Amino acid sequence: MAWECKVTRKVEFSETDLAGIMHFSNFFRYMETAEHAFFRSLGLSIVTTQVTPPVGWPRVHAACDYKRPLKFEDDVEIRLLVREIREKTIRYAFEFRKLNAPAPELAARGELVVACVTKGPDGAMKAVPIPNEIAAKIEAAPETCFA
Amino acid sequence: MAWECKVTRKVEFSETDLAGIMHFSNFFRYMETAEHAFFRSLGLSIVTTQVTPPVGWPRVHAACDYKRPLKFEDDVEIRLLVREIREKTIRYAFEFRKLNAPAPELAARGELVVACVTKGPDGAMKAVPIPNEIAAKIEAAPETCFA
Amino acid sequence: MAWECKVTRKVEFSETDLAGIMHFSNFFRYMETAEHAFFRSLGLSIVTTQVTPPVGWPRVHAACDYKRPLKFEDDVEIRLLVREIREKTIRYAFEFRKLNAPAPELAARGELVVACVTKGPDGAMKAVPIPNEIAAKIEAAPETCFA
Amino acid sequence: MAWECKVTRKVEFSETDLAGIMHFSNFFRYMETAEHAFFRSLGLSIVTTQVTPPVGWPRVHAACDYKRPLKFEDDVEIRLLVREIREKTIRYAFEFRKLNAPAPELAARGELVVACVTKGPDGAMKAVPIPNEIAAKIEAAPETCFA
Repeated sequence: MAWECKVTRKVEFSETDLAGIMHFSNFFRYMETAEHAFFRSLGLSIVTTQVTPPVGWPRVHAACDYKRPLKFEDDVEIRLLVREIREKTIRYAFEFRKLNAPAPELAARGELVVACVTKGPDGAMKAVPIPNEIAAKIEAAPETCFA
Repeated sequence: MAWECKVTRKVEFSETDLAGIMHFSNFFRYMETAEHAFFRSLGLSIVTTQVTPPVGWPRVHAACDYKRPLKFEDDVEIRLLVREIREKTIRYAFEFRKLNAPAPELAARGELVVACVTKGPDGAMKAVPIPNEIAAKIEAAPETCFA
Repeated sequence: MAWECKVTRKVEFSETDLAGIMHFSNFFRYMETAEHAFFRSLGLSIVTTQVTPPVGWPRVHAACDYKRPLKFEDDVEIRLLVREIREKTIRYAFEFRKLNAPAPELAARGELVVACVTKGPDGAMKAVPIPNEIAAKIEAAPETCFA
Repeated sequence: MAWECKVTRKVEFSETDLAGIMHFSNFFRYMETAEHAFFRSLGLSIVTTQVTPPVGWPRVHAACDYKRPLKFEDDVEIRLLVREIREKTIRYAFEFRKLNAPAPELAARGELVVACVTKGPDGAMKAVPIPNEIAAKIEAAPETCFA
């Protein structure tokens, strides 16, 4: 059972804005990068065709608290932690750390809540229980991770 | 004193993803579009060189709750409401409405908290009180807007 | 028969980079915005389900020559001109003009070549002749437009 | 003297569009990623403050020819080759290869021409000769690379 995934990124020029820092919307793209790496680490893809019927994972909620700016060519670690797994949703917490500071510095904390959905016969998306073969691989991180 | 601004957008192809809907990170870009239009409606720019010293508005917190997906060529109204103005921060609430549905449909609700900062002699950003000439133009929306 | 379309945009904060100007990749997104507005002006969508079978328009070639930078809140006119329409492809030319200069200034020239494709029984995209009901609406702009 | 740099990327969900493939504008962001990695491989940054006065590298021309689509989670190699280095400009060629195909497949070819500029006393950018300490590190790739 897995509850953590870490990925690193180098902030790209096209991700900065005229204030000279990474645009705040890109933290959400980085969170998603970590979520998709987490699924790959479980032998899955977020385009989850490994189960029948295939399921998707639309976002229900997204949030970010910004502590320190990230700049061009900063090395950033994005740490995903599973905060909670329920019947039809997963709540992830994220920590952004700037690695190239004298000591790693917390740059931001984020959160995503995603729902497990499948396409109904009418084409509309419907929330469904997370398939067992996926749910069996994921558990919430220990409370101490969030202290 | 102003507390509201509405802008409309048509969802662009480059804003969609392979799930066929607007990527969730773009809702944050749309919120910012409305914030900057709000400043222009006050005779200001978010690159606020109209005051001495110039101030900037980095994001402290951003959040979004997704209700319905937005699709390519959907017409979207983004409504900004000032939720709270404090000494050094402004809290905005956002409503996304899909206009091309049979009746306008709520697609998402968002929130941004921004801090007023200026550059110190060492180049570092420092939170400062919102200059009077700006604060005098902005007030919180009536509570009834959030009922 | 149509051969021109003009759209205007105000450069957004999230489209700028740390050099303080619009990131060069966004000129291509603006070209596409004009292309899709052109299709709408013909009563079509670039997601062209108005013909049977539906067709798509993947890019074969894209190019841009940059003359002057665009900055945050610049008002930009993107002018699309049909340069050539062939059996299976359309070549568009684009002019970017900064409208808020003392006089409109040429900021860039662009080009897109798109192919008309449909999905074969094996799911692969295949170039096909542009359907008559679309081809009948589009013609090349007069040579004088490119002098 | 260097004339080549290779970087790899995994196509991200946020880089795809509703056609299910990487949006064509993102190939230009990938080219830039390779250019900046090339500069780092020379002990430089594209934000070139290692020379006096600092220089910048605005794009003069950008182009891409698309051969095969890239999809979500495709592994892509971007190979930069220096096509030409002149007094004030550098011309780069790019090859995109999809690595996760049965055999690596060419997905696209690109080109960037960048100018070396510095900020004049009036704040305007002016093309200048590439500083010797940079020019001495870069040479054109052998003609055989482009056969």
